[in-house]
Amino acid sequence: MRVLGVDPGLTRCGIGVVEGVAGRPLTMLGVGVVRTAADAELGDRLVAVERGIEEWLDTHRPELVAVERVFSQHNVRTVMGTAQASAVAVLCAARRGLPVALHTPSEVKAAVTGSGRADKAQVGAMVTRLLRLDAPPKPADAADALALAICHIWRAPAQNRLQRAVAAHHATKGRSA
Amino acid sequence: MRVLGVDPGLTRCGIGVVEGVAGRPLTMLGVGVVRTAADAELGDRLVAVERGIEEWLDTHRPELVAVERVFSQHNVRTVMGTAQASAVAVLCAARRGLPVALHTPSEVKAAVTGSGRADKAQVGAMVTRLLRLDAPPKPADAADALALAICHIWRAPAQNRLQRAVAAHHATKGRSA
Repeated sequence: MRVLGVDPGLTRCGIGVVEGVAGRPLTMLGVGVVRTAADAELGDRLVAVERGIEEWLDTHRPELVAVERVFSQHNVRTVMGTAQASAVAVLCAARRGLPVALHTPSEVKAAVTGSGRADKAQVGAMVTRLLRLDAPPKPADAADALALAICHIWRAPAQNRLQRAVAAHHATKGRSA
Repeated sequence: MRVLGVDPGLTRCGIGVVEGVAGRPLTMLGVGVVRTAADAELGDRLVAVERGIEEWLDTHRPELVAVERVFSQHNVRTVMGTAQASAVAVLCAARRGLPVALHTPSEVKAAVTGSGRADKAQVGAMVTRLLRLDAPPKPADAADALALAICHIWRAPAQNRLQRAVAAHHATKGRSA
């Protein structure tokens, strides 16, 4: 399974591509950041994020895109930019017919470190170890994007089982109706 | 000046096209709503909003797109959807090289009713009067989109004067440096 993770942001949008299946060593295929100038027009910034993500999708042809689920608990200005950049990422994936999975920051932290309250350094250290890298990817947004992809690959088997169970339940209900 | 106003939202995205200049009677060229199902996937909803806005841009070829500036003061879930739909609207405009203007809800209300705290009914009544319509456009999102376009047309002369003054100031500074 090849997953492109996106840690959305207007100033720095982290991107990381990971391939593998749960229970086996994972492989990093690419990592980077799409940057836009903080003093540029919002429209130009969104177009630049779209172009950057499209290039990553063209290059790596992932089967699924995992995007951080945005909450409104932080700084208002930051959250708006994050929500807008995440909309562009989700749009780019959906336009290609790719499934999109949203994971919360605490789900991602718990998946790679065992704790939903781990700090950035801990996430960076585990991403480095799990992908057998020489050093933590910089900036943190790039490491977070890889962590999102890893989180999805590891959670996917459980989610798929859940989806199959729900589908089976609906099918049973359908027959008994 | 032909302006396409967008009142962004995932469930109902209001669109209104108004033509005119400040100080003259305005003309409504079109009004409507792009709807997406609340139970659809986020990606499919964003793709549907993008397609809807693209159709409006193709049909009406506006010179500028005015979008409501999103704040995080309301319900968290609603604000995220609004921010994401507004990102799609801004992206569609910027991709075509169209200028994008953002106006706050209170700027829009003040422009069309004289009060930044006017209610929806008052905005609807003034939009109906200013565009010489038979009845207020329904739903309120459609009326709000028209109000946004009117707000921009009326504020544009002042904003243009301001921009020229800033440009002149920078030119003077450039010569004296």
